Amino acid sequence: MALIIKVNDRDNVVIPVQDAPAGTEAVPGLKTIQDIPQGHKIALNDLKKGDEVIRYGVVLGRLARDVPAGGHIDEHMLVLPEMPDLENMPWGRAAGPDHGLPANLPSAFEGYEVPDSRFAGTRNILGIMTSVQCVAGVLNVAVQKIKTELLPKYPAVDDVTALNHSYGCGCAISAPDSVIPIRTLKNLMRNPNFGGEIMVVALGCEKLSLDMLLEPHENNPENVIVLQKQAGFKAMIDAVLSMAEKKLRKLNERRRVTLPLEKLCVGLQCGGSDAFSGITANPASGYASDLLVSAGATVLFSEVSEVRDGVQFLSGRCGSAEIAGKLLSEMKWYDSYLERGGADISANPSPGNKAGGLSNIMEKTMGSIAKSGSAPISGVLSAGERVSQRGLIFAATPAGDFVCGALQLASGITIQVFMTGRGTPYGLAAAPVIKVSSRTDLKNLWDDIIDVNAGTIADGTETIQQAGERIYRLIIDTASGRYAPFAEKYRLYNDICVFDPAPVT
Amino acid sequence: MALIIKVNDRDNVVIPVQDAPAGTEAVPGLKTIQDIPQGHKIALNDLKKGDEVIRYGVVLGRLARDVPAGGHIDEHMLVLPEMPDLENMPWGRAAGPDHGLPANLPSAFEGYEVPDSRFAGTRNILGIMTSVQCVAGVLNVAVQKIKTELLPKYPAVDDVTALNHSYGCGCAISAPDSVIPIRTLKNLMRNPNFGGEIMVVALGCEKLSLDMLLEPHENNPENVIVLQKQAGFKAMIDAVLSMAEKKLRKLNERRRVTLPLEKLCVGLQCGGSDAFSGITANPASGYASDLLVSAGATVLFSEVSEVRDGVQFLSGRCGSAEIAGKLLSEMKWYDSYLERGGADISANPSPGNKAGGLSNIMEKTMGSIAKSGSAPISGVLSAGERVSQRGLIFAATPAGDFVCGALQLASGITIQVFMTGRGTPYGLAAAPVIKVSSRTDLKNLWDDIIDVNAGTIADGTETIQQAGERIYRLIIDTASGRYAPFAEKYRLYNDICVFDPAPVT
Repeated sequence: MALIIKVNDRDNVVIPVQDAPAGTEAVPGLKTIQDIPQGHKIALNDLKKGDEVIRYGVVLGRLARDVPAGGHIDEHMLVLPEMPDLENMPWGRAAGPDHGLPANLPSAFEGYEVPDSRFAGTRNILGIMTSVQCVAGVLNVAVQKIKTELLPKYPAVDDVTALNHSYGCGCAISAPDSVIPIRTLKNLMRNPNFGGEIMVVALGCEKLSLDMLLEPHENNPENVIVLQKQAGFKAMIDAVLSMAEKKLRKLNERRRVTLPLEKLCVGLQCGGSDAFSGITANPASGYASDLLVSAGATVLFSEVSEVRDGVQFLSGRCGSAEIAGKLLSEMKWYDSYLERGGADISANPSPGNKAGGLSNIMEKTMGSIAKSGSAPISGVLSAGERVSQRGLIFAATPAGDFVCGALQLASGITIQVFMTGRGTPYGLAAAPVIKVSSRTDLKNLWDDIIDVNAGTIADGTETIQQAGERIYRLIIDTASGRYAPFAEKYRLYNDICVFDPAPVT
Repeated sequence: MALIIKVNDRDNVVIPVQDAPAGTEAVPGLKTIQDIPQGHKIALNDLKKGDEVIRYGVVLGRLARDVPAGGHIDEHMLVLPEMPDLENMPWGRAAGPDHGLPANLPSAFEGYEVPDSRFAGTRNILGIMTSVQCVAGVLNVAVQKIKTELLPKYPAVDDVTALNHSYGCGCAISAPDSVIPIRTLKNLMRNPNFGGEIMVVALGCEKLSLDMLLEPHENNPENVIVLQKQAGFKAMIDAVLSMAEKKLRKLNERRRVTLPLEKLCVGLQCGGSDAFSGITANPASGYASDLLVSAGATVLFSEVSEVRDGVQFLSGRCGSAEIAGKLLSEMKWYDSYLERGGADISANPSPGNKAGGLSNIMEKTMGSIAKSGSAPISGVLSAGERVSQRGLIFAATPAGDFVCGALQLASGITIQVFMTGRGTPYGLAAAPVIKVSSRTDLKNLWDDIIDVNAGTIADGTETIQQAGERIYRLIIDTASGRYAPFAEKYRLYNDICVFDPAPVT
């Protein structure tokens, strides 16, 4: 019997993991009646013209002609369902059932509590925010000294990181869209992994003034160093080291405690996707996401341009008309942002996608959405907005890995699961990143980069549920400090790439 | 006699360095007839209503009423000259005379020749380009190892730098404005300070494909490492170190040779400006610029939003209708870019500027333009475009220091002069940056950051010409490797902040 993938119980099509010649047994009692290429759809029943083709539990389209059981359904045979009007999206109809958390899975983790924070940290890091790129050179020199001279004296602190970025001046700070980078930076320094300690290095004449980043009670010499007030370079370095030591002393007092998963905020992201991402790594992570949500955790998924074409399926999982409304307004903002810049949003899926078996935009998008499992969506965040709800949250960010990563950190994730097919060594300094491969080949090639192989699903050695439980356990182990993902071990950290849709000046 | 500043021989106004009470002798034989605040304009002759007020050698406006010699000209007394139509700008009328290079000043430097390059390097650096942010984590780890394990073996090489940036994927690569970031990165790795060696670390699935960065003959395994083809993290590090060592071996053969200034390309930039920038540091650097141009060097100045309101004065210095036409088309592009993003381009000068004596946008802008001296403009570059002309060039970039810095490097500068009033510790890894202060107070406070104090001009201890000659000599010394500016000594390096006016996706 051939290896096949069925993503959802409702699906009336399956996908062969390898090319399936005519006569291959696809499921017990069903043989293919023609050659089916790898990753293409096989009808499970006799289907008639006009019947719905269901994959990922959703209608991909209606058949343009009859297809018998064991037959091939390609992109020419599918008529797209009419795209619902963005104004009249259904909501609250499509969320999957909550199966609850199996008794054999952990329902707590060991984290760092943070004063006045609904989420706990998974790491104990000194994060030094910058109000403008101008200070990056000085701060980098200072952080190097902190790492060699101070950090070893405070063994309970995991790391120190400079939150350098390209924002802060030379920007249209009063333009409407500037709310996004300002909010991002303000929230980023409040990530629970920084333990509630505020430390900002400013220049003194930047457009991003301290009152935009800090509350009045935070804006004082205990938390802020203004370089223009320092007597030269050596004084700057001394000032940064002196403040850093005070913060390190406080952070060094922190200890992990056993916490319910209500205190955990997990980010999901995919990058360098391939034809297997949507059938292995993403649904397995989606299953882990459902388990996390069942256990009370908060899970963020993102990437507007990856879900835009299937937004009706997300809308259907929104828990209220208000949540669906926010989802749609984020999509509209993004549509207009892309249009304004002359970005081409057509030509999707690409010819390469179609050759790989992705018949239409719905099918491609569902592969991306698969990472969110089937839980109801309990909130939608604008880019860089801080999460205030529990459960599964759509954080509306661009799909670029490094931009999405910075925005999810600002929203409050303290750990991220990153699914990849082609492979990327992506990582974040501010939170551990678990990398999940879609194919066993990638895990074999990148054995010391990929933390979890979900290619087992395509290999037929694991089910989506089994791989999902494995990812779930690794999330808990990583959050608890018992496992260091490869990116953390080797310190493979991407820059903080701020999303600034406003003009540079 | 009070300290006064006269910027240009044609000026019929002067500026007191401190508040000048009525009766202060401003110039020999002329006393102020009323209290003149610091930095405000004093009439040198009896001026009538309708007369031109000339500062920086240009007409700031016409008088709204008579002002006697020694009187105060404030913002209410000046009628702006009619803003010329962008379509019908004069050209070729306003460039200053070329006084030639005084015999006591050096007319050659010690630089590194680069094959097939019209400009020579001032440093000998291994620059490792990245095609996408995704690879930054791996490259940073590798560069750290190169610095400790390899660089000491190649003493003729000054440094190794990772050209990390936020571009390469998650970007609207087919949008019209994407030409700017692509061109910037392609040209950046060809900066003469990298000695013509090409080394690129790519991921493998990024939108910025290698054929966009490299010529066909460059795109080969001698110059390019694709991480997705490497067998894991350790293999990636080995591959980067192995290629780096081959490049270091070649760079290590290079020696400085005596070269004419035709081989030198200097960038000028100001940031953190104050009321003195336009009367000390900028005109002194402008004088140095005139000397450089006289000696055959190429000088780039930039910052569209800082010159936009006085573009007619730049247009007047353009050497041909074609150059003036390109200048104006860059201004138009920028106007529409800012408008599209809802940026506010009015409210200039600010109330603070006016209180400081800057009567109108012309006067403010002329302070910025002062850094370009009075030479004719022999070329205009779009953002990130490579310089192909000689002489004084306007490189149309945003005014933000770190964005302008990256773009000037892409255009080909091998050394930069940076004027600052409020103070910034700005620096570039790819080229030495000489920092010039506008005030002696700043030099006193930041003695170990500021390389040249032009506050001497306001103090009355030096003329603009004397300070300009000092800056000129330091440029030659720095370019020749005889002087390391403080930013280079302490390695205060800003990130490569790429200007991407197209949408993020």
